[in-house]
Amino acid sequence: MDKIKHVFLGCQAPPEEADIVVFGAPFDGTVSYRPGTRFAPSSMRPDSYGLETYSPYLKDDILNYKTYDAGDIVMPYGDKDLALLRIYYEVRSILQSGKKSIMIGGEHLVTYGAVRAMAEKYPDLCIIHLDAHTDLRKTYYDVELNHATVLKKCYDILGDDRIYQFGIRSGDREEFEWAQEGHVYLHPFDLEGLDSVCKSLKDKPVYITIDLDVLDPSIFPGTGTPEPGGITFKELMWGFSQFCILENIVGADLVELSPHYDSSGVSTAVACKCLREIILVMNRHNKKV
Amino acid sequence: MDKIKHVFLGCQAPPEEADIVVFGAPFDGTVSYRPGTRFAPSSMRPDSYGLETYSPYLKDDILNYKTYDAGDIVMPYGDKDLALLRIYYEVRSILQSGKKSIMIGGEHLVTYGAVRAMAEKYPDLCIIHLDAHTDLRKTYYDVELNHATVLKKCYDILGDDRIYQFGIRSGDREEFEWAQEGHVYLHPFDLEGLDSVCKSLKDKPVYITIDLDVLDPSIFPGTGTPEPGGITFKELMWGFSQFCILENIVGADLVELSPHYDSSGVSTAVACKCLREIILVMNRHNKKV
Amino acid sequence: MDKIKHVFLGCQAPPEEADIVVFGAPFDGTVSYRPGTRFAPSSMRPDSYGLETYSPYLKDDILNYKTYDAGDIVMPYGDKDLALLRIYYEVRSILQSGKKSIMIGGEHLVTYGAVRAMAEKYPDLCIIHLDAHTDLRKTYYDVELNHATVLKKCYDILGDDRIYQFGIRSGDREEFEWAQEGHVYLHPFDLEGLDSVCKSLKDKPVYITIDLDVLDPSIFPGTGTPEPGGITFKELMWGFSQFCILENIVGADLVELSPHYDSSGVSTAVACKCLREIILVMNRHNKKV
Amino acid sequence: MDKIKHVFLGCQAPPEEADIVVFGAPFDGTVSYRPGTRFAPSSMRPDSYGLETYSPYLKDDILNYKTYDAGDIVMPYGDKDLALLRIYYEVRSILQSGKKSIMIGGEHLVTYGAVRAMAEKYPDLCIIHLDAHTDLRKTYYDVELNHATVLKKCYDILGDDRIYQFGIRSGDREEFEWAQEGHVYLHPFDLEGLDSVCKSLKDKPVYITIDLDVLDPSIFPGTGTPEPGGITFKELMWGFSQFCILENIVGADLVELSPHYDSSGVSTAVACKCLREIILVMNRHNKKV
Amino acid sequence: MDKIKHVFLGCQAPPEEADIVVFGAPFDGTVSYRPGTRFAPSSMRPDSYGLETYSPYLKDDILNYKTYDAGDIVMPYGDKDLALLRIYYEVRSILQSGKKSIMIGGEHLVTYGAVRAMAEKYPDLCIIHLDAHTDLRKTYYDVELNHATVLKKCYDILGDDRIYQFGIRSGDREEFEWAQEGHVYLHPFDLEGLDSVCKSLKDKPVYITIDLDVLDPSIFPGTGTPEPGGITFKELMWGFSQFCILENIVGADLVELSPHYDSSGVSTAVACKCLREIILVMNRHNKKV
Amino acid sequence: MDKIKHVFLGCQAPPEEADIVVFGAPFDGTVSYRPGTRFAPSSMRPDSYGLETYSPYLKDDILNYKTYDAGDIVMPYGDKDLALLRIYYEVRSILQSGKKSIMIGGEHLVTYGAVRAMAEKYPDLCIIHLDAHTDLRKTYYDVELNHATVLKKCYDILGDDRIYQFGIRSGDREEFEWAQEGHVYLHPFDLEGLDSVCKSLKDKPVYITIDLDVLDPSIFPGTGTPEPGGITFKELMWGFSQFCILENIVGADLVELSPHYDSSGVSTAVACKCLREIILVMNRHNKKV
Repeated sequence: MDKIKHVFLGCQAPPEEADIVVFGAPFDGTVSYRPGTRFAPSSMRPDSYGLETYSPYLKDDILNYKTYDAGDIVMPYGDKDLALLRIYYEVRSILQSGKKSIMIGGEHLVTYGAVRAMAEKYPDLCIIHLDAHTDLRKTYYDVELNHATVLKKCYDILGDDRIYQFGIRSGDREEFEWAQEGHVYLHPFDLEGLDSVCKSLKDKPVYITIDLDVLDPSIFPGTGTPEPGGITFKELMWGFSQFCILENIVGADLVELSPHYDSSGVSTAVACKCLREIILVMNRHNKKV
Repeated sequence: MDKIKHVFLGCQAPPEEADIVVFGAPFDGTVSYRPGTRFAPSSMRPDSYGLETYSPYLKDDILNYKTYDAGDIVMPYGDKDLALLRIYYEVRSILQSGKKSIMIGGEHLVTYGAVRAMAEKYPDLCIIHLDAHTDLRKTYYDVELNHATVLKKCYDILGDDRIYQFGIRSGDREEFEWAQEGHVYLHPFDLEGLDSVCKSLKDKPVYITIDLDVLDPSIFPGTGTPEPGGITFKELMWGFSQFCILENIVGADLVELSPHYDSSGVSTAVACKCLREIILVMNRHNKKV
Repeated sequence: MDKIKHVFLGCQAPPEEADIVVFGAPFDGTVSYRPGTRFAPSSMRPDSYGLETYSPYLKDDILNYKTYDAGDIVMPYGDKDLALLRIYYEVRSILQSGKKSIMIGGEHLVTYGAVRAMAEKYPDLCIIHLDAHTDLRKTYYDVELNHATVLKKCYDILGDDRIYQFGIRSGDREEFEWAQEGHVYLHPFDLEGLDSVCKSLKDKPVYITIDLDVLDPSIFPGTGTPEPGGITFKELMWGFSQFCILENIVGADLVELSPHYDSSGVSTAVACKCLREIILVMNRHNKKV
Repeated sequence: MDKIKHVFLGCQAPPEEADIVVFGAPFDGTVSYRPGTRFAPSSMRPDSYGLETYSPYLKDDILNYKTYDAGDIVMPYGDKDLALLRIYYEVRSILQSGKKSIMIGGEHLVTYGAVRAMAEKYPDLCIIHLDAHTDLRKTYYDVELNHATVLKKCYDILGDDRIYQFGIRSGDREEFEWAQEGHVYLHPFDLEGLDSVCKSLKDKPVYITIDLDVLDPSIFPGTGTPEPGGITFKELMWGFSQFCILENIVGADLVELSPHYDSSGVSTAVACKCLREIILVMNRHNKKV
Repeated sequence: MDKIKHVFLGCQAPPEEADIVVFGAPFDGTVSYRPGTRFAPSSMRPDSYGLETYSPYLKDDILNYKTYDAGDIVMPYGDKDLALLRIYYEVRSILQSGKKSIMIGGEHLVTYGAVRAMAEKYPDLCIIHLDAHTDLRKTYYDVELNHATVLKKCYDILGDDRIYQFGIRSGDREEFEWAQEGHVYLHPFDLEGLDSVCKSLKDKPVYITIDLDVLDPSIFPGTGTPEPGGITFKELMWGFSQFCILENIVGADLVELSPHYDSSGVSTAVACKCLREIILVMNRHNKKV
Repeated sequence: MDKIKHVFLGCQAPPEEADIVVFGAPFDGTVSYRPGTRFAPSSMRPDSYGLETYSPYLKDDILNYKTYDAGDIVMPYGDKDLALLRIYYEVRSILQSGKKSIMIGGEHLVTYGAVRAMAEKYPDLCIIHLDAHTDLRKTYYDVELNHATVLKKCYDILGDDRIYQFGIRSGDREEFEWAQEGHVYLHPFDLEGLDSVCKSLKDKPVYITIDLDVLDPSIFPGTGTPEPGGITFKELMWGFSQFCILENIVGADLVELSPHYDSSGVSTAVACKCLREIILVMNRHNKKV
């Protein structure tokens, strides 16, 4: 008889046939406030079955495409360098097999492991970064590699004019000023201008990193550092529609869901719907099943 | 000495004098994701006392009218046919005594029991349906009578051009396509056009069924299948103001509050305020106390 | 790289090699009070990794044996007859392949589906039943097939002197009196005498059904109908040690974990540890890996 | 059709026929730590339906007797004197009609209102007091009438040798010393000796006040001031069996359930079962229906 | 080594040097629905460290200024008059030392204690009041001094044309009508017109009292009486920007955070961010460190 | 006016006069299952005021002694070596000033930092270790320094026959076998024999480390890795009474309270009471105030 084995909704293609590989990176060892993002992938899998596979936003169905859920990387508790190395190897391996990766965090630091692999293959990589926080610190509480420094670390690989930040509403003065010096494009509070940025990056290899706390905590309370004043879910869906302008999204991640602060389950439902949409956006030029 | 006996706020008229009868239908036996709507009526009664009886929206007070809280129908656990039959008998009996009914679910399937009785008395019945979900499936997980098929079952009674859906943002492709063939009017995502529909139905007998998950889960997390991207409470209040155009609302229901997913109590407060408003809308031509 | 794919801890044998098959039966459509046991299997899988595979109680390790996690049966929402049929087919198929089954509920009614298949193969089947509730009603709220009638339905298959109940502390007077007429052995409140019963059933085919609400709600709050006055976890572990007397346990189930009433996760941890122990008890004569 | 109207389980006798009147006193205006006991009566009513009416402890059924649920007294928010006065009037009125009262708090201060009325009718009244706290302060945070002074206030009415305290495990040194001077009988930590006390008070008019925090917070977390180290539910049931020795229980109360600290609902279930048992204990000489 | 001692974020100036004194008034003894605001100050202190000291809204940093956290007033449980007296003395003492006060409630009644002291020093005091509720009752449940009467009590000190209310969406008909008679300025539902009011009060001594339930419960569920239909956090931030027009804010308070209804911690985060902003608004003309 | 500034209950001595220093070590960066112990100290401080300063167990009052709450060490997020170093410096500094330390974790790894400093001053140090887990791994998930290896790391400093473990009920086979080789004394499941051990260590310098998950999760659910089958609170209090045999307790810690898994607050109350008792045990020969 048919059984349910919990992979992410609709991600049941065999590994070798898949165009896109989704995997979990359940690491949260450097967070400064409330940890718990390690539980995001294992919470999202069963809860994703509360969703439909069909999106009325994109008028498309994830069952039309071949996506593989590879499971979660085994994380070494208390060793961030080893954690990042494993993420790097995983993403490099996916890229080497000609597929695209979608990573489910974990805390935002996991992005650094993926971007290292991405930048090796795509030296002209650009990053679109949706977040409540700048994440541009040089060190944080005396530590250099950290969820609050992650975009600065990515900048150190990529250099000026490669990172486009939206929705930012928290950081220290030095971060905002450093961004204003022109190193990164930082648009505060909302997604205004994302359409123009997508047009300008249309043909570039783009990595999309979405810290889900870019959403207002009214709709996304289940995160480590809730920051009131964020964007609505409808605004984020508009953002996803703009991502369809990009012709070469080479990878993406969704980070910072912390399910244990989400007693109603709504935040997990939001993350699952975002995953469905990003899978559809990235698959839309792939061959249908 | 005066005692509090928990009926819904302001629904303390004697049964024989009441113009409107409110009752609970605490059935949730066919839900596919998270059950628990059976607790909605018993949670709403005590929590309704956190509200005022006066509405600054409608500038009216429920104590001006005669509304009776009949309590909750005893539900047979695990027998949906018997459950629907009991709802049918209850609504038929209310209609026969010349009163109007407001039913508090329970899951959305309970609407089918009420609509059967309504359609007998009002063969030209129309339904205004606010919901996140189409509920137009023919079967769901091999079952025909189900919270995901309920509007299709109502359609089977009423036929084309009788059902007006608003706020829909989830379903499968077949449901959206079937609706577009013209069987029902389906407006996705929001309430745009509800004013026109109300004008066109002004003199028709109208049944209003509100699946409270039409609201965004930021304001209504306490429901079985939260769907981000819904309407705000202010938009819903605007919808209620449009219902005042309708001259012949013959019944209504509020369904899908699931209080155990509502740790803050906000969803229950929302449901109670919606109940106050729909009581006022339906009473507004009745004689004042 | 190695990935975590969430099967129950230690249940990673290939299906064809396994001696024991664990599967989920996430059905809760007939419960009378608080539903939600459908979420038990999908909650237990990831949380089981908070446990060790080694048991200091039995001084044995589940990795020594070959156990297969078959996933969850797809349940038809709102159709208890079809649900029971699917469980029956699943268990029959496991028995036909010469394996033993462990079922994770769901509500207690699921036991009836399994016992039907068991009794076909083992006409002299006996049942050891740990529970807070008698579950011996003839009908419940006008319904015959129900979580409160399930042992009576099993009795209807097996007849007198086959069912041994322990820990019972809730029921109506008729149920206690009917049991006292000698149809079933009912020991109230605790496990006293379980050792003698196990000795007397040593060579019989025995099915063990554990409604986890036999535990006191202090240690197992996450269940539909908590009944204070239950046994401690240590008493239950003593019970498991007595099960080692039985030479022919042909199947078992653990039912009535309702994770959404378990905000601390302790109830789920308890259920996982019970699963580890019952797997070890049932495997202890099997060949080690 | 039959409807459920939520009175306490089995308390549906007409007021004039009832032998026992149960009412709620939802006042919590003087608590020092976590408030919320005002929600106890309205939470217990619907949740009491998760219980059976039959008690396997006392082998008796509350439906055998005539008990009336009078609802909740309307409490003046922020005025403890008026609150106590209303409780006093309510209990006096019940006593004047020849019935017995069971009060559901609210915080422990409500006992003072009831005891004032009881002592008027029964000048030789004795009190059996189960609690984690001494409640014998003279003032508390500069306030004389308070949940931490309530038994001292009762003592001021009744005098020496009338109050018997069990289970006490918290207080300041002065309270313990004052008790040891012989004013009240204070047995710390558990119920040892309750049987002897019940025998010695067999023919006296006895008021039983149970602060449910006498229970260990493992089984009763939902209270304002949880004190680890309390008695088990089984010990409390033993206590109830000793109450059957008393021939003249003239009233009782159950106080300090705070449902909003009881996310699993177990504390409310405990309180409901205690209410069922105390109703049975106090009714056991009354005429059966 | 440096230690964290939990004062409100950035409020670590020595008392004698501070320009602004923040203190807690953890009193909630008169609330009519859900109590618990007494826990607001002690919840906000540790959680405030989830915030940055820098505000991208006001482009300023609280570390630029000298603010002192004086701790919480010791509240007499169950004695509202004494509680208000202590608040009065505290505020009077702060004013006498030439500083300004920010009070963290506690329920809204605490405002009355502060306003008494304020009005003594500033006889022409005006109040800007953001709230979901009118709080203009003469008595409430037979009690005159109460969280639902507090602005009426302030009016009794100040007289006509001194109180400006925004965001109001709940009250009884008499309150709305009394306001419309011109005694206070009451703007319902939102903050429209707050800019004009701030301009007209530019040079007046203004006390700002913010009942945080003026926010929609989607973003602020953790409060005693949630009222759907409120303002968004972005609207409130706009309101704070208008407060910068006022040249003479002499004091402020933030009331009605009830952290135990805030399982996600978002409401506390909102309250902390509001505190940061009001500290910045009130300090903006003070000398920088 | 007097204010409450939240130090641990009764720990308000000036630093220079104190005999005992309590401090928080809010580090949880290496936990394998559920993080969150970093919030223990900041949750315990305000909640400790729900307790009395007087202990009826030890018939003593913490206000009799001079204890100082030093606040929390600032922890570097994501750098366990630096975290341990800071703890080491803190404890060394306390010891150098002739005082004793009580550390509030944080995860169990923090013990290693304290024991390093202790062993420097007391080369013949012994450790009494109460825990559900062996914590004797050599590495864990490829990491050597970890909450699951911490006692093994302490062993590496101290050598054979110095560590006495009680209550252990989880670990892998290798750990139990290694202990049985005689390196450490490991008593499983309960505290039996603790009295004899205390007598044998009467004159030795003893460090007590209490992983609060030694308690059964019924009374202590708020921890990262709940293990059913633990000891009761009364058993732990018996253990504390045995600690009074020890003449030279040089330090202690309480670790692994994770308040965000403790929705009822009971676990925090348990931890606070344990802190009160250990302060009294360690102070009992000190001069009274």
